[in-house]
Amino acid sequence: MTAKFIVIEGLEGAGKSTAIALCQNYFHQKNVSYIDVREPGGTPLAESLRELVKAEHKETMSAEAELLIMYAARAQLVTNIILPALENNTWVLADRHDLSSQAYQGGGRQIASETLSALSNIVLKNLRPDLTIYLDLDPKIGLARAAKRGELDRIEQEQLSFFQRTRAKYLEIANSDDSIKTVDASQDIESVHKNITAVLNDFFKTEANK
Amino acid sequence: MTAKFIVIEGLEGAGKSTAIALCQNYFHQKNVSYIDVREPGGTPLAESLRELVKAEHKETMSAEAELLIMYAARAQLVTNIILPALENNTWVLADRHDLSSQAYQGGGRQIASETLSALSNIVLKNLRPDLTIYLDLDPKIGLARAAKRGELDRIEQEQLSFFQRTRAKYLEIANSDDSIKTVDASQDIESVHKNITAVLNDFFKTEANK
Repeated sequence: MTAKFIVIEGLEGAGKSTAIALCQNYFHQKNVSYIDVREPGGTPLAESLRELVKAEHKETMSAEAELLIMYAARAQLVTNIILPALENNTWVLADRHDLSSQAYQGGGRQIASETLSALSNIVLKNLRPDLTIYLDLDPKIGLARAAKRGELDRIEQEQLSFFQRTRAKYLEIANSDDSIKTVDASQDIESVHKNITAVLNDFFKTEANK
Repeated sequence: MTAKFIVIEGLEGAGKSTAIALCQNYFHQKNVSYIDVREPGGTPLAESLRELVKAEHKETMSAEAELLIMYAARAQLVTNIILPALENNTWVLADRHDLSSQAYQGGGRQIASETLSALSNIVLKNLRPDLTIYLDLDPKIGLARAAKRGELDRIEQEQLSFFQRTRAKYLEIANSDDSIKTVDASQDIESVHKNITAVLNDFFKTEANK
């Protein structure tokens, strides 16, 4: 099996970190060689951009500036880390990727989908995740969980309606793309784990038969 | 006369700072209320992006990341400084603007013009300079002047061929856009000043008659 690009997506507090740990265990059992990345970030320059985009500033950050910083960080990660790993037959396990921009900036910030598509084409070219696991959760629950973990960053401080639009966009795109599997993250943790494992089993079975 | 947006463009060492000082004097004489901006930069966040894009990094900066950081900084400057100034009937005098990206990233880095157009549309929407003065100079001369001023940044350290492509793109666009006036910056300083003053006289005369 050639190396695959697998992405974990979802709102704050949806359980991405736990899902990533589960995938890591799964990969170890399958003897899959992989790297972890997170967005925005994953290279020194991309992490500097992450800090800038998450920080509070005295000036208002325009929606376009936020969007372009996200894609600048993604360009750096894709070019310097993700593509070289896949070419070296190393799997890539990503905490967020392009779908986050489509959901947060497209849904939350209501930036036109044509703008998002133009940027995706510039930065990703032909790269697409082989599998995305989207952890779906009512933002009311997710934000309460995220708030418990500590101080919220600039984006996490948005109003509930922002995250409701973000979730709606996540669901809209997930429903139209077969490579995105939605997992109900409001279930108890055992059920969520069972669902994610089923998605991974199914993915490995399908890929092995290709 | 409504407030105008005037841009000074050219390669390193072409004499942009001197041209800007000349414009400032001219504006004072005309009792024009204006602000100065420079790109990339001009707001605290945009200046942070400027530092990142000009610095040397241990990793290679991808052409796309460089391009998107430039446009992120521009988005911030346009939204928070340039548009509010023009709406407030304050003129804007800019040290570089979108044409720099078209010349450096489009010409120098050979990024497709469709990519540049897509980003311009996202960031600038309907904003276009009323007048651009392009100081044209052989990069061999310009780089020698720039080197004398001190240490060169990451972009200024590119090979001569990079700047030759940049200059060719500057000239190509200047020749197809009536709002861009080319001034031969290889002349003695008095002649350059005379040419710039003539461009400004002509611009004010034309605008006053509108």
